[in-house]
Amino acid sequence: MDRTVPSAILLIHCPDQKGIIARVTEFLSRNKGNIIDLDEHVDGHEKIFFMRVEWELEGFVIPMEQISDRFREEIGDRYQMVWALHYKGTKPKVCVFVSKYPHCLYDILSRYQSGEWSIQIPLIISNHDHLSDIAARFDIPFYHIPINRDNKQAREQYQRSLLKQHEVDLIVLARYMQILSENFVREYPNKIINIHHSFLPAFPGAKPYHSAYARGVKIIGASSHYVTTELDEGPLIEQDVVRVSHKDSIQSLMRKGRDLEKIVLSRAIWHHLRHNVLVFKNRTVIFD
Amino acid sequence: MDRTVPSAILLIHCPDQKGIIARVTEFLSRNKGNIIDLDEHVDGHEKIFFMRVEWELEGFVIPMEQISDRFREEIGDRYQMVWALHYKGTKPKVCVFVSKYPHCLYDILSRYQSGEWSIQIPLIISNHDHLSDIAARFDIPFYHIPINRDNKQAREQYQRSLLKQHEVDLIVLARYMQILSENFVREYPNKIINIHHSFLPAFPGAKPYHSAYARGVKIIGASSHYVTTELDEGPLIEQDVVRVSHKDSIQSLMRKGRDLEKIVLSRAIWHHLRHNVLVFKNRTVIFD
Amino acid sequence: MDRTVPSAILLIHCPDQKGIIARVTEFLSRNKGNIIDLDEHVDGHEKIFFMRVEWELEGFVIPMEQISDRFREEIGDRYQMVWALHYKGTKPKVCVFVSKYPHCLYDILSRYQSGEWSIQIPLIISNHDHLSDIAARFDIPFYHIPINRDNKQAREQYQRSLLKQHEVDLIVLARYMQILSENFVREYPNKIINIHHSFLPAFPGAKPYHSAYARGVKIIGASSHYVTTELDEGPLIEQDVVRVSHKDSIQSLMRKGRDLEKIVLSRAIWHHLRHNVLVFKNRTVIFD
Amino acid sequence: MDRTVPSAILLIHCPDQKGIIARVTEFLSRNKGNIIDLDEHVDGHEKIFFMRVEWELEGFVIPMEQISDRFREEIGDRYQMVWALHYKGTKPKVCVFVSKYPHCLYDILSRYQSGEWSIQIPLIISNHDHLSDIAARFDIPFYHIPINRDNKQAREQYQRSLLKQHEVDLIVLARYMQILSENFVREYPNKIINIHHSFLPAFPGAKPYHSAYARGVKIIGASSHYVTTELDEGPLIEQDVVRVSHKDSIQSLMRKGRDLEKIVLSRAIWHHLRHNVLVFKNRTVIFD
Repeated sequence: MDRTVPSAILLIHCPDQKGIIARVTEFLSRNKGNIIDLDEHVDGHEKIFFMRVEWELEGFVIPMEQISDRFREEIGDRYQMVWALHYKGTKPKVCVFVSKYPHCLYDILSRYQSGEWSIQIPLIISNHDHLSDIAARFDIPFYHIPINRDNKQAREQYQRSLLKQHEVDLIVLARYMQILSENFVREYPNKIINIHHSFLPAFPGAKPYHSAYARGVKIIGASSHYVTTELDEGPLIEQDVVRVSHKDSIQSLMRKGRDLEKIVLSRAIWHHLRHNVLVFKNRTVIFD
Repeated sequence: MDRTVPSAILLIHCPDQKGIIARVTEFLSRNKGNIIDLDEHVDGHEKIFFMRVEWELEGFVIPMEQISDRFREEIGDRYQMVWALHYKGTKPKVCVFVSKYPHCLYDILSRYQSGEWSIQIPLIISNHDHLSDIAARFDIPFYHIPINRDNKQAREQYQRSLLKQHEVDLIVLARYMQILSENFVREYPNKIINIHHSFLPAFPGAKPYHSAYARGVKIIGASSHYVTTELDEGPLIEQDVVRVSHKDSIQSLMRKGRDLEKIVLSRAIWHHLRHNVLVFKNRTVIFD
Repeated sequence: MDRTVPSAILLIHCPDQKGIIARVTEFLSRNKGNIIDLDEHVDGHEKIFFMRVEWELEGFVIPMEQISDRFREEIGDRYQMVWALHYKGTKPKVCVFVSKYPHCLYDILSRYQSGEWSIQIPLIISNHDHLSDIAARFDIPFYHIPINRDNKQAREQYQRSLLKQHEVDLIVLARYMQILSENFVREYPNKIINIHHSFLPAFPGAKPYHSAYARGVKIIGASSHYVTTELDEGPLIEQDVVRVSHKDSIQSLMRKGRDLEKIVLSRAIWHHLRHNVLVFKNRTVIFD
Repeated sequence: MDRTVPSAILLIHCPDQKGIIARVTEFLSRNKGNIIDLDEHVDGHEKIFFMRVEWELEGFVIPMEQISDRFREEIGDRYQMVWALHYKGTKPKVCVFVSKYPHCLYDILSRYQSGEWSIQIPLIISNHDHLSDIAARFDIPFYHIPINRDNKQAREQYQRSLLKQHEVDLIVLARYMQILSENFVREYPNKIINIHHSFLPAFPGAKPYHSAYARGVKIIGASSHYVTTELDEGPLIEQDVVRVSHKDSIQSLMRKGRDLEKIVLSRAIWHHLRHNVLVFKNRTVIFD
């Protein structure tokens, strides 16, 4: 659903029990909130209840700054809920990390520039300077911050200060070929999206197209996930695949893979920006 | 979700307005119905609200035979709802219509026989006797009812009397190569599922693989839909496609298409049997 | 196969008969041409033989300018062949036509700029000025040539003079929302590639996403084809699809469709640039 | 291509060198063999040439029993070729191994019974008796051979004697839940086809749907491969995938997976039966 009215979104999870939906929708309708979208999911395995509810702010009688407290008092605490409250309307600030490959960066910038995504991109960070021309074409500040084993800690500190300074909400690793250190990752839980060029959990780590070629797979994939401290093990947001054959050399796997990578990464970013994603026990619930 | 507890399902649509979800869930929870699944959809174009809600019958305080009346009085009339109430537990009776092609019939019978689907198949009806051996292998009565222009009305009358006699709930046209007359179709609204061997609305009518070959398409498809009085125009339940190339002859399109046809038809039947399908203005809402 | 050695490519079709492959490969090997790729196809329906053969020019004893004549004398005439001879190495000149939608243009320009495609883009032509900024970002001359019913003939004349002046080899209609007149199309047979935003032959003409929504399809597609004088009826080069559901509004169909459109168009351009495409009776043979 | 004329098929691989295609096609055409299909592939990485050529036996001047020798003398030895010569026309004998799951068996038997595949199925072998009724329905001898750690060697000996006795050409493991011992596997190189219920190399071994659920993948797959002495590591013949979501329980992954498994296994069998498959260094070349 593509709507433009100002709205609020609650992403909720809690132990499953009777009457949760009734309580939440009663709370919203009693306060004159018109529900635009409601989606719920019960994980029967884990006995966990998940919910995404979006309602129009126009006419809602609780002021924005009090919604969270009122929700906690009336419902949240009682049901042991974990929840996040988001508002549509403000443009989130996104920082893109890149290395040498331009395809994902171009795809992101074209969506940004054409207004497909309502975001700000205050800066691009790279450990190489190959893509600085692209940043210049799109008038975005480009920080070339080379990293090696010796300077990694200091350079990451610099990166993190830039992110703080620009009040970055989301970090996108657009084929960034460095592993972020644990402290960095822990500072941005479920706020760093990576694209890995394989169908995870197949072929984690380096050179997945070479491995796919050697294994003789008939389909290749790309996987976008939140970054956690375990390499290529974070919660998957989106995956897609394309059929290949014995005719494909490693080079042509890379060529076909590039198109997958950029589309899969952009779909994942879009879900994140829409507040469609809820993470629980390293799995995602995607309400779309 | 695959659950085995006895449950009831309400499929609802009505003009969109505030508070519907709250009212319905409050009604269920007040009567001690534990909601297993709730899915709603608002068609912003048509301003119509759709809902599928499934709850456990165990502990529900309203007796089964009174649920419909109580729902009407307390909610349904007030919101101008159209709704259907279903119960899981009873095995629906399915009649399969076939002609000469066995692949869809085999697929249906193997799911039936292996218990994948909890149904009864009291009879198979065919205008040819090619597949009578298969019916015999699976111990299902096979009615060979040849149809031509002259006898069509009488033979359909006979078919319909068989359906009545066996209290058939669902008719599946598994590559049945006759067009049902309007009266027949009108007697079973949204209760006749057909498989068409193209990606509708491309290539309706006869010989779609020949047309696909002639047009040089790079992908072929199959479409399953409820039968209406307009040929191949009924509400689509499920579609799927497979990539083809210039190497495919008409024969190999048919071969690849057969696998599509049987899987797409079976998925559509499954959705129908699960009461996942809601029809509105010739489109389906599939709550899965 | 991705190779960078200078090579020649023959695309051949002729009535099927014995010994063609032997004759062609003997001709090449006798003249010391090392075959890199050979693919043949026999259309059993039409009794037509198709072949794509690529060989290294290094060591080939026939000078480039004599290959065509020698091939005709020794083989082509005898087998009533229609053939085209191409060389890899020269950068073809591509002109992109656009209107208001930027996504296909961005995709083309990013592949061009990053060197994924070895082409020149001497100019972009548009009937609107919406995308002139993008052309400027990529330093490509942008010709804003508004067209209406009255000036169409004159403006097309101007477009064609620009194409001539820039020696354009390939025209790409990247969501260009004007229909080229017959004379224009006839001047560039199999040299104009269009992207249509539906799974042809479903939903030809205007507003296919609206039609797809109204029909309630479960899958949408995009189709790239050579332009002929019949609207949306030219030979299909590439198609792809994506699954949708009742949740998708017309706007979200458009959003999902944009990703399809740009990828499908770019794949078609790539096949054309590689000389993989052979057209016969409005169908394409794609040797990949 | 679906043809019914009697034909011979050569599957060849050898070190890549100039003139191979010319020599082979010249040999066939000189002996009045009309080539129906020729497909070649050069693995640029390994510098290996692969070829599948099929020609009509009618009119071919070399008697069937001399083709292999004549080919060796004139071409094979000189180019260090490894080749296999097959004839279309004889019905290969296929033995199906099963355990408890019926879906792949049903799919195979329905293709066999309907004449889609031109094969014989002289016997079904199982370590459980769950599916004996199905075998009975299709009038195929069913050998119930329970296997445990203690009797494995003896029971496999019995299985192998049955295969010998029935002159079995191809063994299909249709969700057979026992691992064949190395000696058994070595006796049937590239003649045992298995279906694994994951997108290999992801989730090898036991319970892949449970692992896929735990990992939260957005797509599941099935993989058919020749069995080697390394578990789930043999050359892949065919793979396919289907999209899933957080809504899918382990049970519904299994349900969706079953459809994949049976179709992927049947496609792999079909390629094998058509002699489309060439194995080299644990990868397959599929000429289709």
